[in-house]
Amino acid sequence: MGRVLIRQAEIVTMNGDNEVLTGDVLIEGDRITQIGQGLDAEADKIVEARGQVLLPGFVQTHVHLCQTLFRGRADDMELMDWLRKRIWPLEAAHDEESVYYSAMLGIGELIQSGTTTLLDMETVNHTDSAFRAMAESGIRAVSGKVMMDKKGGDVPAVLQENTEQSLAESVRLLDKWDGYDGGRLKYAFCPRFVVSCTEELLRQVAELSRQYGVLVHTHAAENQEEIAIVQRETGMRNIEYLEHIGLASPRLVLAHCIWLNDMEREIIKRTGTKVTHCPASNLKLASGIAGVPGLMEQGIPVGIGTDGAPCSNTLDMFQEMRLTALIHKVSHGPTAMNARKVLRMATMGGAEVLGMEREIGSLEVGKKADMILLNLDQFHTFPSYDADLFSRVVYAAGRGDVDSVWIDGREVMERKRLRTVDKQLILPEADRAIARLLRAIPS
Amino acid sequence: MGRVLIRQAEIVTMNGDNEVLTGDVLIEGDRITQIGQGLDAEADKIVEARGQVLLPGFVQTHVHLCQTLFRGRADDMELMDWLRKRIWPLEAAHDEESVYYSAMLGIGELIQSGTTTLLDMETVNHTDSAFRAMAESGIRAVSGKVMMDKKGGDVPAVLQENTEQSLAESVRLLDKWDGYDGGRLKYAFCPRFVVSCTEELLRQVAELSRQYGVLVHTHAAENQEEIAIVQRETGMRNIEYLEHIGLASPRLVLAHCIWLNDMEREIIKRTGTKVTHCPASNLKLASGIAGVPGLMEQGIPVGIGTDGAPCSNTLDMFQEMRLTALIHKVSHGPTAMNARKVLRMATMGGAEVLGMEREIGSLEVGKKADMILLNLDQFHTFPSYDADLFSRVVYAAGRGDVDSVWIDGREVMERKRLRTVDKQLILPEADRAIARLLRAIPS
Repeated sequence: MGRVLIRQAEIVTMNGDNEVLTGDVLIEGDRITQIGQGLDAEADKIVEARGQVLLPGFVQTHVHLCQTLFRGRADDMELMDWLRKRIWPLEAAHDEESVYYSAMLGIGELIQSGTTTLLDMETVNHTDSAFRAMAESGIRAVSGKVMMDKKGGDVPAVLQENTEQSLAESVRLLDKWDGYDGGRLKYAFCPRFVVSCTEELLRQVAELSRQYGVLVHTHAAENQEEIAIVQRETGMRNIEYLEHIGLASPRLVLAHCIWLNDMEREIIKRTGTKVTHCPASNLKLASGIAGVPGLMEQGIPVGIGTDGAPCSNTLDMFQEMRLTALIHKVSHGPTAMNARKVLRMATMGGAEVLGMEREIGSLEVGKKADMILLNLDQFHTFPSYDADLFSRVVYAAGRGDVDSVWIDGREVMERKRLRTVDKQLILPEADRAIARLLRAIPS
Repeated sequence: MGRVLIRQAEIVTMNGDNEVLTGDVLIEGDRITQIGQGLDAEADKIVEARGQVLLPGFVQTHVHLCQTLFRGRADDMELMDWLRKRIWPLEAAHDEESVYYSAMLGIGELIQSGTTTLLDMETVNHTDSAFRAMAESGIRAVSGKVMMDKKGGDVPAVLQENTEQSLAESVRLLDKWDGYDGGRLKYAFCPRFVVSCTEELLRQVAELSRQYGVLVHTHAAENQEEIAIVQRETGMRNIEYLEHIGLASPRLVLAHCIWLNDMEREIIKRTGTKVTHCPASNLKLASGIAGVPGLMEQGIPVGIGTDGAPCSNTLDMFQEMRLTALIHKVSHGPTAMNARKVLRMATMGGAEVLGMEREIGSLEVGKKADMILLNLDQFHTFPSYDADLFSRVVYAAGRGDVDSVWIDGREVMERKRLRTVDKQLILPEADRAIARLLRAIPS
C-alpha cells in the first residue's frame, strides 16, 4: 500500500463544519495522515485530481447482498407477499456458490457507485461464502447470517432453524470473521424481524451482543401487516417489544421504522437505538414514508440503505440520497432535507449508526482512507461556476461519475477499473447461479 | 444518412402489444423500413448490437432548456418563491449567447441519457438562440418562447411584455422555425401559466393554436398558492378557467396537474387535453404528488418530463421513470405503476401527448428512426437470465448505460461519443455564461 498522495482535489471533508477545501490528501497504509495545500510528501503513487471531487466513501446501513441475484424477480409486491412468495423460496434455494456470486455482484455495483462500507444481512445458510466475497473484494462490511427460528408461517423448511442452531452458527461465524483484516470485516447478529424470531432467541441475541460488543441488525416497523402480527403475538408495539426483551441499545440498528408512534420514538431516542432509512425499498413495497425529518430533529442517528436488490433494484447510494432529499419535502416543506444534511446521512450519519464514527465517515487526519473521487465535468453536473458541491453531488451526480475508490487505503477502483471484482467473471456466473435457483423453486 | 442496419439487438418495440424480439432493424434515411430476423439488406453501416437493448428514444413532454444554466441555483424553495427570487431574475439576465449555451448544455445531457424528443418552454427573449441549438444538435423538439403579459407581481421589467408584442414575437418564431428540417422542429405557444397571462392573450393563443394547428404548452394546477391566485382573479378553478377561455383541447399540454378536483379531471378527459407528470420537480418544490394512476385509468394521455434543471437538477428520463414507478405505490398500491406502464409513458405516452404517435414513440416500420441502444451488461442491471427487460430498464438502468442514440435516422451519439454537441466547448461556455448572469442579478 505504502504512501499515496492525492493532489489538488476539491475535498468535501464532512468534518464537523462540513468544510470544503482545495488541496492534497496523503494516505499512509490504511489511514489519512495529512490533509493540506501543497503537501510536500514523498509518495509511492501520486494521483492528480485537479477539478475532481474527493468525498468520504458512502456508508450504507442496510443491504442484503444475498438477494442481489433476485433483482427484478419480485417487482410490484407488498412486503409479506414479497417474502413468502419470492424471497424466502429463493433464499432457501441458495447454495454456497450462489451466495458468493450474489455478494460479488452486489459488491461490484456498490464499489462502482461509491459505497465503501455496508451493514449487510445474509440468509440463514452459507454465510461463510458471503464473508469470503467481502474479504476478497476489499469492501468494509458488518454482516451476519439472518436468524429466524419461529416455526410456522410460509417459511421453507431449509430456512427454519431451531434456536440453539441459530445462535451457535452465529457465534461460529462471529468467531471466524469478526475483526478480519485488521477489523475491516465485523460481525453483527441479524434476527430477521420479530415476526420470524422467538423471544428466547431475541433475548439471547441481546445478551450475546452485549457480551461481544457487536451490533444487532434487524427490521422493524416497516409494514402495517408486520406491525399487526407483532401486536397480536406480543400485545406490544414493535419497538416497545424490542425494549421489553432487552434489545434496544446503541448497538441496535433498525431498518425502516416507518410506522412509529410517539412512545416508540421516545424509546429509540432514550435507548440510543439507531435507524436506517431505505426510501426506494419503502416506496417500491408500498410500505410508506418514514418520518425521517422528525427522527433527526429528535437527534436520533439515521443512516441510509438501499436494502436488497429485489426491493430497490439498485444498490446505488446516489439514487437513495436523491430520493431521501426529495420525498420528505411534500409533507415537511422544501427545506426539510437539504443536500448537506443528506450527504451527511450518507457518510458520517452511516458511520454513527455503525458506531464507527471515529474510524470512517469523513476525511480527517487519523481516519481510515475510505474515499471516492468523482469526476463532475459532465453535462448533467454543470455549470460548475461558484456551484454548491453538496447540491451537485446529491441532486445531480450519479454512479457513472465515480472515478476511483479507496477502501482501507487500498485502491479498489482505479480510474473506472475495478481491481478486486472481475466483471467478466461475475456477470456470467451470476446468470448461471440465478438460473439454478429459479429451477429449484416452485414457479 | 443512407442505410443503417442494426443487428441482433433485443428490440423493445413499445408497439401496441409491447412486443420484445431479438432481431435486426433497418433504417433508410430518417425512417425505420424493416424489422426482422436475419435481414438481408445492403447497408452503408452495420451496427453489431448482440446482447444490447434497442428502445425507442425517450419523449419528454416538459422541459425548460433556458434554465439548464440555473441548475443548483434554486434548491429547496417553493414554486412562487423559486420563480420570484431566483428563476425570473435569472431569465431576465439571459442574453443570446447564454440562452444558446443553456440549451446546448441541456441537449448534451438529454441525448446522453436517451431523450430524443422534447417539449420545451423557453424564456421571453432570445428564443431564436434556443432554436439554433436545437437545430444544430439534431434533437427533435417542440418549443416556443414563454408568454407573460400580465402586469405586476415581481416580474422583472425585461420579462414584461405587452399582449401584442408577445403574440407577434411568437408568430414570428413560429413562421421561422415550425417545420424546420423536415418537421424535426415544431413551434408551440407557451403561455407561462394563468397567473402570468391576461385573458386576452390566452384567448388569442387558443385561436392561433387552432389556426396554425400547433400545441399550447403551459403549467397548471402545480401549487396551492398558484391555484388560490387563479381562483381569486378568475373566480374559477384552474382547468375550468382554461376551458372557459377556449384553451382546453387536444392541442393543450398541461404540466403538473397535481391539484385537480373531479370537475377538472372531467374537463381534461372530455376535451382531450394532455397532461405531463414531473415527479422530481413536484417533490423538490414540495408541490405535491399528482394523481397519475387515476388520470391514466380515466384514459387521459400522460407523458413524463423532468422540468427544468433548477427544479429537478437532472434532465435524466431514467431517474424520472424510476420516480414515476416508485412514488405512487404508497397511495395506490404496489402494482399501481409497473415498469411496463412507465416505459410506455416515457415513449409512446409522450408521443401521444405531442400528437406525434404516428411518427415516433415506438420501433415500428414506417416510423421515424428515433432510437437508443443500451448496454445492460453491468453489475447494476444483472442478472440478465430470463429477466424482464421493462424492469431492468425502468428500475435499474441509468443514463450511463446509453451507448448510442439516433434521431431522425442520424446517429447523434455513437458508442458513447456525442457527435453534435461538443462537451469541451459547451462546459466552459456554460460556466462563463452563468457567471455573467449571476453578476447581473441582485444577490
